Amino acid sequence: MRAAVMRNSRLVVDDVPIPEPGPGEVLVKTLACGICGSDLHALRHASEMVAASAETGGSFQMDLARDIVMGHEFCAGILAFGPGTAGTLKVGDRVCSVPMTLRNGGALAVGYSHLVPGGYGENMVLFEPMLLPVPNGLTTDLAALTEPMAVGCHAVEKSRIAAGEIPLVIGCGPVGLAVIMALKQRGLGPIIAADFSPARRKLAETVGADVVVDPAHHSPYESWADIASRDADGKDIPPNPMTGRPLYRPGVYFECVGVPGVIQAMMLGAQRDSRIVVVGVCMEQDHIRPFVAINKELNLQFVLGYTPEEFAATLQAIAEGHLDVAPLITGHVGIEQVPRAFEDLADPEQHAKILVIP
Amino acid sequence: MRAAVMRNSRLVVDDVPIPEPGPGEVLVKTLACGICGSDLHALRHASEMVAASAETGGSFQMDLARDIVMGHEFCAGILAFGPGTAGTLKVGDRVCSVPMTLRNGGALAVGYSHLVPGGYGENMVLFEPMLLPVPNGLTTDLAALTEPMAVGCHAVEKSRIAAGEIPLVIGCGPVGLAVIMALKQRGLGPIIAADFSPARRKLAETVGADVVVDPAHHSPYESWADIASRDADGKDIPPNPMTGRPLYRPGVYFECVGVPGVIQAMMLGAQRDSRIVVVGVCMEQDHIRPFVAINKELNLQFVLGYTPEEFAATLQAIAEGHLDVAPLITGHVGIEQVPRAFEDLADPEQHAKILVIP
Repeated sequence: MRAAVMRNSRLVVDDVPIPEPGPGEVLVKTLACGICGSDLHALRHASEMVAASAETGGSFQMDLARDIVMGHEFCAGILAFGPGTAGTLKVGDRVCSVPMTLRNGGALAVGYSHLVPGGYGENMVLFEPMLLPVPNGLTTDLAALTEPMAVGCHAVEKSRIAAGEIPLVIGCGPVGLAVIMALKQRGLGPIIAADFSPARRKLAETVGADVVVDPAHHSPYESWADIASRDADGKDIPPNPMTGRPLYRPGVYFECVGVPGVIQAMMLGAQRDSRIVVVGVCMEQDHIRPFVAINKELNLQFVLGYTPEEFAATLQAIAEGHLDVAPLITGHVGIEQVPRAFEDLADPEQHAKILVIP
Repeated sequence: MRAAVMRNSRLVVDDVPIPEPGPGEVLVKTLACGICGSDLHALRHASEMVAASAETGGSFQMDLARDIVMGHEFCAGILAFGPGTAGTLKVGDRVCSVPMTLRNGGALAVGYSHLVPGGYGENMVLFEPMLLPVPNGLTTDLAALTEPMAVGCHAVEKSRIAAGEIPLVIGCGPVGLAVIMALKQRGLGPIIAADFSPARRKLAETVGADVVVDPAHHSPYESWADIASRDADGKDIPPNPMTGRPLYRPGVYFECVGVPGVIQAMMLGAQRDSRIVVVGVCMEQDHIRPFVAINKELNLQFVLGYTPEEFAATLQAIAEGHLDVAPLITGHVGIEQVPRAFEDLADPEQHAKILVIP
């Protein structure tokens, strides 16, 4: 099959073997697969990613000496059932799936393993118990957005954000946009969002941000404070009577950038006693000054992925129109164009989510 | 008055002016003052501390060009009442206090300000509304331990640790010991504690650790796993039926060291989905690998100090014998010996808490 392959830290298009479904697995045809920012990171920092995964018991088992086909945001069509499958669905059915299979009692990440190729190739094998049929009528393109939207849903769930707490989203790439949409879906806000890119800020507004900020011209933390210093009726919250210090509604800050330095910048910008949710996937070493976080008694919640239940609920929410993901899709490419699309994604003005259509 | 003074990043003993009580303040005689590890850090990293405090709206306002008298773990005797005081207590009464006064509507940290000297000098001024009379019969030495014990109480409260969750305390200096005692007081455990020093491990056992570990010979995280892999009745918890991975009771890990590298080491050692409570005060830049924390979905709670209510409850708990702090006191010195005592505290075999008796 044709596939975009990570080989020697570069992305090349080549013919690779069609994967064979093992016990409980199903062979599928990739119908659409989104390109994820984590894959751009993984291409640059594969060895750090493999090392950290090995040290932490993670599911990213990649032998970098072998070909790896990435791609984990997909909608697929069933081609054939492997041994030991139940066959409840039919050949031709469109499905989404948590990108994970189980082999020999161990989890393997589809698209982050040399053993199970992902959606930048024509075919994949998926784990039958994970398959979710695409609800009737939902387009393949929109169904393929389930995975990144589930990331946003999970981050918001893990943040334990409640009504009356004010969210600030730093970074409006697909992850930040997914967080904004998950917040909006739950009626939380006002939502403040920041990104250097005008196109990304426009998208953030389209999907539900109430206030968007260009950090080059205005501090997102000040914009947050402008809103959080007033109560739900818009009245100024009086300062602490003892110390005269201003008081704010509680803050929940979402880190959706994933490059070194952002966590420290957010610790400096966050109000005391607030929570920072780290959704961006930084694979490099980072530096922090703990005393800054100590002085403010900050809480950092690192998050990854989603539960199968969150994934299923997200697909359902998209199908029912509660998450309008269409604006995120900014381009379609074939497999031959995947390396070029990886480069194009470096420019936030041009693209948010590019779908690969094999 | 005589005082141990931080001057040009060194500790010297000299005569300095007796502080004058401002509105609402009371002049006291220092009866006993514990030497805190944070003061050792502050002496080495004063400029980092001042910078971080200024950036974060903290209360540590120190003009390092001027003399600073540290010392914030004290028991004192009332000498005179300043203007605008209520005078509810009497001259001669022994008191403890949150080391904080209010001037011009702003908080100042007693012992971390050039404006309000701390307990390494013969006299201090304290804020009358903060004063707590030492409950009848409690010795001055034990009352002076209120402050560090309140730090442990606060850390345990902020950790939200519940019955059935298994705590691991990394570092058994006074902060780690205070955390162990606060856990024990609440009936939580089994408590696993780790320190390279035999004397510190002995103390940890004395104050309530159930298992102590020498990290030079055994991984504290493995000792934790030995216990957390069994339920409250000692039966092995069966592995995850889907993945075959071992399952553990939830973990709450207390960082009580405060030097660079420990947070990253704990992120590597902690089980997935667990909480790390950062109690140690690291004033230097530190490095972390976010992807390790992301892969495990860790939560980091940074903590500082305590509430006035926690402070008062701690004093009461010591007075009622619920916190037996006597084993922590390993020495007494006069003001002239404070610089030497700072050096002696570098050796964990020799000392835990040294009290300054002016």
